Amino acid sequence: MKILIVGAGGTLGRAVVAELGSRHEIVSAGRSHGDVRVDLRDAASVEAMFRDVGMLDAVVCAAGAVPFKPLAELTEADYLAGLQDKLLGQVRLVRAGEHHLRDDGSFTFITGILAEQPIVAGACASLVNGAIEAWVRAAAIELPRGLRINAVSPTVLTESMEGYGPYFRGFAPVTAARAALAFSRSVEGRQTGQVYTVW
Amino acid sequence: MKILIVGAGGTLGRAVVAELGSRHEIVSAGRSHGDVRVDLRDAASVEAMFRDVGMLDAVVCAAGAVPFKPLAELTEADYLAGLQDKLLGQVRLVRAGEHHLRDDGSFTFITGILAEQPIVAGACASLVNGAIEAWVRAAAIELPRGLRINAVSPTVLTESMEGYGPYFRGFAPVTAARAALAFSRSVEGRQTGQVYTVW
Ligand SMILES: NC(=O)c1ccc[n+]([C@@H]2O[C@H](COP(=O)([O-])OP(=O)(O)OC[C@H]3O[C@@H](n4cnc5c(N)ncnc54)[C@H](OP(=O)(O)O)[C@@H]3O)[C@@H](O)[C@H]2O)c1
Ligand SMILES: NC(=O)c1ccc[n+]([C@@H]2O[C@H](COP(=O)([O-])OP(=O)(O)OC[C@H]3O[C@@H](n4cnc5c(N)ncnc54)[C@H](OP(=O)(O)O)[C@@H]3O)[C@@H](O)[C@H]2O)c1
Repeated sequence: MKILIVGAGGTLGRAVVAELGSRHEIVSAGRSHGDVRVDLRDAASVEAMFRDVGMLDAVVCAAGAVPFKPLAELTEADYLAGLQDKLLGQVRLVRAGEHHLRDDGSFTFITGILAEQPIVAGACASLVNGAIEAWVRAAAIELPRGLRINAVSPTVLTESMEGYGPYFRGFAPVTAARAALAFSRSVEGRQTGQVYTVW
Repeated sequence: MKILIVGAGGTLGRAVVAELGSRHEIVSAGRSHGDVRVDLRDAASVEAMFRDVGMLDAVVCAAGAVPFKPLAELTEADYLAGLQDKLLGQVRLVRAGEHHLRDDGSFTFITGILAEQPIVAGACASLVNGAIEAWVRAAAIELPRGLRINAVSPTVLTESMEGYGPYFRGFAPVTAARAALAFSRSVEGRQTGQVYTVW
């Protein structure tokens, strides 16, 4: 398969490249690294990326930023920043990307444990992740030509504990390599409309 | 209790007014009907409403519009319209309203079955409802002074079947009065961070 991985240079993305790259042709994408450059916040940039890379069998996203701030400090601009990047960024990948996917191709997107299990300062992340998961379930029943869409919901990654540990006390981390397996399950399996939890 | 009900003039809102109004003082709010007028899409309008109504024991929302369109026709503007109205509208009610709620007061918000169970043309509604539910779980752990927050998730209402029936074939409707009970359970109970499903 020819697989586009957005966020290929990140903590999670590198593990997904290692997992899928052992069996498939990878096109890496990111804002400042990768075979192609893209900013998920900009529909024109997403469209240009798909024109560059040609036909694909799978689109994977391991990118998407959200602000972490106490509830009382989250402004409308913060919510919109999270929505524009991690949520609408992945929506844009479907809108622009479905025409560049071969029949039975797949989208595999990133959400996270905060959709179900909240932490202090994580309200915007929870909101964005909850939206992604419900939208993936809904988009799955309307995509044409056997196209599939799933999401992967990891808990905090072992590799990120140095920075995120204080926010995730009591959460058992998983390695990025373990989370990457769920991307493989989505891309190389046949299910659609699923949220694969990794925790 | 003194309870503000946004969307009090709507199909669902009228039933919530009937249920809670039998025991409590109701302040009704809506875009074109009610004791006070508010547009949830406008933060300044939400702030002005709370200045008008004084201190409250509960804030209920039975308002919030989202576009229904096939996935392939949903534009960025459509997603943003749903996010600005039903999702960020309810976020604004907390941002502006928490200072007007007495200790142990509550927010009770509206989501819907599409967060979990998709229908064709419902992807934007699913996305918005999923965001609301995850955000309610997250906000619940950060609200101060014993303030509570829950959401009510009805299936399609019996009273709305004439218009919505074709979208909801095979879904068993519930009456607005039955859905209104879940608002009472949130306002008059003591739980927080819950999504009360009514289906
Ligand atoms: N880390 C965790 O513990 C954890 C746990 C659960 C879920 N997640 C989720 O997993 C995703 C990746 O997390 P991570 O820790 O791997 O992040 P990371 O190390 O910061 O990597 C993010 C990657 O995404 C790219 N990127 C960021 N913003 C972008 C944009 N607007 N357009 C295009 N590419 C963009 C970056 O590209 P460049 O490097 O090229 O700039 C980078 O490759 C996030 O959505 C996060 O919420 C992470
Ligand atoms: N009906 C169903 O079957 C069903 C099922 C599950 C969930 N829901 C959800 O329940 C909520 C209410 O549905 P409904 O059928 O009762 O709707 P409805 O009959 O159209 O009533 C909507 C109410 O909300 C007010 N409103 C609309 N936009 C507003 C805004 N931007 N700012 C302030 N007020 C606004 C309207 O005020 P004015 O009348 O004063 O203009 C009206 O009172 C929606 O979020 C819907 O998604 C409905």
